[in-house]
This record gives sequence, structure tokens and C-alpha cells, in this order.
Amino acid sequence: MTLHTRFTERFGIEHPIVSAPMDVVSTAALATAVSRAGGLGLIGGGYGDKDWLSRELAAAAGTPVGCGFITWSIDASHIDLALSHEPAAIFLSFGDASPYVEQIHRAGVPLICQVHDLAQVEEALQIGADAVCVQGGEAGGHGKGTRSTFTLVPEAADLIADQRPEVLLLAAGGIADGRSVAAALALGADGVVAGTRFWATRQAAVTRAAHARAVAINGDTTRRTGVYDIVRDKDWPPVYTGRVLANDFVVRWHGHETELVENLDTARAEFSHALEADDVDLANMIVGEAVGQVHAIEDAGDVVQSMAAQAENILAGRSPAAR
Amino acid sequence: MTLHTRFTERFGIEHPIVSAPMDVVSTAALATAVSRAGGLGLIGGGYGDKDWLSRELAAAAGTPVGCGFITWSIDASHIDLALSHEPAAIFLSFGDASPYVEQIHRAGVPLICQVHDLAQVEEALQIGADAVCVQGGEAGGHGKGTRSTFTLVPEAADLIADQRPEVLLLAAGGIADGRSVAAALALGADGVVAGTRFWATRQAAVTRAAHARAVAINGDTTRRTGVYDIVRDKDWPPVYTGRVLANDFVVRWHGHETELVENLDTARAEFSHALEADDVDLANMIVGEAVGQVHAIEDAGDVVQSMAAQAENILAGRSPAAR
Repeated sequence: MTLHTRFTERFGIEHPIVSAPMDVVSTAALATAVSRAGGLGLIGGGYGDKDWLSRELAAAAGTPVGCGFITWSIDASHIDLALSHEPAAIFLSFGDASPYVEQIHRAGVPLICQVHDLAQVEEALQIGADAVCVQGGEAGGHGKGTRSTFTLVPEAADLIADQRPEVLLLAAGGIADGRSVAAALALGADGVVAGTRFWATRQAAVTRAAHARAVAINGDTTRRTGVYDIVRDKDWPPVYTGRVLANDFVVRWHGHETELVENLDTARAEFSHALEADDVDLANMIVGEAVGQVHAIEDAGDVVQSMAAQAENILAGRSPAAR
Repeated sequence: MTLHTRFTERFGIEHPIVSAPMDVVSTAALATAVSRAGGLGLIGGGYGDKDWLSRELAAAAGTPVGCGFITWSIDASHIDLALSHEPAAIFLSFGDASPYVEQIHRAGVPLICQVHDLAQVEEALQIGADAVCVQGGEAGGHGKGTRSTFTLVPEAADLIADQRPEVLLLAAGGIADGRSVAAALALGADGVVAGTRFWATRQAAVTRAAHARAVAINGDTTRRTGVYDIVRDKDWPPVYTGRVLANDFVVRWHGHETELVENLDTARAEFSHALEADDVDLANMIVGEAVGQVHAIEDAGDVVQSMAAQAENILAGRSPAAR
């Protein structure tokens, strides 16, 4: 057997591996490297900076890549901008995607809805998603954090099989290597979306200090918190927190959010200075538990290919113990 | 290929599937049913009720089963009691197992240490565990809740391969069916430990109302909390919380622990009455996220065999999509 799934067939790609649309981090360089290696690269439209988005979509021209957004932070004009570049997919996370479904489908573009629990899977099926990406709380960045990849994938697979069996299922949260790709497919996914693993590649727009820290730490070092949303003035719906490196800033303020708000000017100045100084003890380093499996900063295309090869070996019974 | 692993070889069992030692729930009836079906059943020694333990160990005589304890709540006499019945394994969770290692090894019994993050894996390797069971926070009952099965298993596999490659690795947290068994092995485990799935069998000492509720709900309905430890006067180290059904009692008191302590007599009376009345809206129903994959209360031996058969199919490439 190979890793050909319903997802690779329907999207015309070689490997069922997607790079997550990480805000600002997922540049044209990253997305095109992933797509050229046989996966599907997504550009990180994030909070909807149109200048950045136009530049990156133009830079990716000629290579099929998709584009992702933080749904609550955009409007129809962001979707139009992305659609004007004929993306391979639109990927919407964190909020009600229903206002954009018709617009996206009229353009003949597949809609992938990222969700965080079973109730959200059901909503995505109801509004007409072509694929549902279920993200466990082990993932880096924002999410509900109430479900894990290991249980949410099979439960979502059963719900989809029951309600809208033509819909594809992607697994996100903890995808680090070929072992996790094989595990996600075994659990019932048609493909995977990896964030942290592609964040830790040469093509990602990540600072030198953050990459160096990622290589040095294990997976016990992250936690979910809202403190960086407070200091960055990002108006996230309260149900969402973000998984980040549990650095000095997080240790100081997490659980003391009232004091953080009382000291916001000082904390903001410190945060801004940390960003400029590339100080990951204070600036936000957005990684998931899979950071513990990052041992080197590699080429994104090589990551796609080694993930796929390892997963193929495991699922073909050629490498059962995976070590 | 089959599901024969280093774990099945070393323990002389047919399937790499263990039933968790759930306090009081994991009776001799449950443990022996699992062992007779080719897995490894563990009796739930829990907080160390010696009368209960003696009775259940005696009832299991003739079938190889192991025994588990909540480490912080026992002393050497509990281990001696278990060892006098020549168990197939001693399984220690939640606390420092080092005082018991020599005692257990002198009896020629394998020690399985259950741990919840990578730092605890390292401790278990240092004290001389024969197997390490890593439990993700999706599991029912107590744990640290800071890591997930999906990322902790491969990271632990790499650490063990590096430091003490002869040590076996078991995966717990979210093990519900053959898909999760296949996924755990793909991630690098030598076997699995399932709690909720065996809790939901005819042999488990679980009330009728709790079983009925489990069949009716999805996996979004649980949460981690310490409120039942307060009302039961269980002196858990603060690092551990328990995943339970997020019922009316949990919704009322979680996040309001100070008020719970102020109203402890009333809450205790209510809790005791709920236990007697088999009222799962108020009494603690200890299940993990995998409860969403429980659709019937089955025979424990049948569960072992269907899990193993499904996992074999997936890992042999005969059932890639698992649906």
C-alpha cells in the first residue's frame, strides 16, 4: 500500500500532508516548498493583513497552494482577495465560516473548516465544508484545548461516515513525523495538517532564537494561555486559548491576568522590546507539544518526503515498532 | 504481520492490550476476562483497601493478572499483599515508585510505572521500571493533564530508545478500539492500556445509570477537575486532577472550589446521596474522552478480541481508512 487516500485523490496531490496556515510564519516560500514536495502548502492569511497576503499569494503564483484565515477577524473581501489567486483550498479556523461558504464554492475552491470538538465537526458538516480538519489541544497556537487528537479523530470519522461520508477528514495537533502521520490515518483521517513541524523548517518566517530554542527543548515545555492575546490586544473569543512556549512571560502572567491588565503599558513595552530583541523568554513562541520531536531545522520539502516515507513503511507493516 | 510485539513476547500474552487498574471498577471478573481473552488484566488496588484487594486477588487465582495502586496512598504492606498472589505485574501510578522497586524485583515481578509527562518517563527509567506506561490527559481519572497521548508516546519512545532501550512502552489515554491500538503502535508503543473502554464492559463494577449515560454521550462531555477529590476528602498531590463526566455537580463547583470548601457538609451529603441513588448528574462518573466511542456495554473478552483484530487489519494495510 501507499499513502494514497481519498484526500490525495481528490486534491491531486502525492502525499496526504498539509502545512498549517500559520499567521505570518507560513509564507509563500514555505507553502510552495510543501506543495512542490507533493503535499499541500497553505499560506497563513491569519488576521487578514491584505498587503502581506497579496505579496505572498503573488509570490506563490504557478504552484498550487491554499490560504488560511482566522475566521472571526476577516470579512468577505479577504476571501475575495485569496480567491482572485485561484487557491487550491481555503482553510477557515476559529469562528463561523457559514458567511463565506457560497462565495468559496462559487469559485470552485474546496473549503476546509478547522474545528476543535465534536460539536464543531457537526456544525462544519451542516454548513457544507468539503473537508473538516479536527485539531487536538496538543497543537500550537489557538484552539479550544478541550479535546485531543487521539480521541477526536476517530470520533469525527464516525460522525462524518454517518452524516456526510463524502467529506474528507484531516487531523491536526501533534503531527511531527511519519509515526504521527501513520497514526492519524490509522485513527481514520484522510490526511494530516502539521504546524510546529513546518514552523521548524528553513522556509518558515521564524527567528533564529526561536528555532534554536525549539531544537533544545522537550514537549513538556508548552502550555495553553491567553496572556499574549491580552498584551497583543487580540480580541479572541474567550473559548479560545493559545498553546505557546511556557517562557518567563507566561510563567509570570498566566493565572494573574487581572494584574496583567493593570500593568498593561509596562508589559506591552516589555513584549515589544522582546520581539525586537528576538528574546524568546519574553516574546511569544507559538509551538505545540510536537516541539519535543523537533531535533533540527530542516528543509520543508525534505520534511514532507521523510514523513511520507516513514508513514508508508509503518502502515505497510515494514516497520511496526517505528524505531 | 500480527500484533506480536516485544510486550506480548516478554509477558507471554497474545494481544498487547491491558485493562487499566481502575480503583474498585477493575475487579477480578474484569481482569480475568481480559487475560483469558489474550490480553493482560489488572486488578484496581487503587487507594489500597486490603480486604477488597485480598478478595479480588483470591478470586482471580489461576489466571495471570496484575495489580495496580495509587502510589502516594499505599505502603510496602500493600505491595507485599499483592506479591503474595504472584501477580503478572505491579502497576504503580501517581507518585514515587522507588521505595517499592527492590521489593517487586526481588519477587521476580515486572514493574510497570505509569507516568504523565516526559520528565516522569525519565524518572521511571532511572528507578528501574521494566515498562513505562505514558498516559495522555485525554484519559479518564487522575493525571497531570499537561501532555497528550499523540505526542507523548513518540517522544517517550525516542527517550527510551536512547536511554534504556530494553524498557517496554505502553500507551494510555484515549484507547477505544482497534484504530487507537494501531495508532499507538504506529507512534512507537509496544502495547496499550485502556481504561474507559473496559469500564464500559459487563465485567466492570460500574452502576447501571453510569453505563447507560456512557452509551448516550459524546466525547465532548468530560473535563478535568479536582472537585470530587475535595468532596471525597482524597488528599491528591495538587499536580493531579481527574477527568470525569462534566455533570451538574462539576459544572456547579469547578472553578468555585473555595465556595465548595465553605459548603462542604452540604455538598458531601448531596454527593453521598447521589452515590446511593446512582445519580450520575451528581455522583462522579470517571471516564475519559474515549467515552464518545462507547456505543454499547459489551463483554470484556470480546472487546480485547475485536480491538486486536481491527488493529491487525489496519497495520497489515488491509483496512487503511479504518471505516
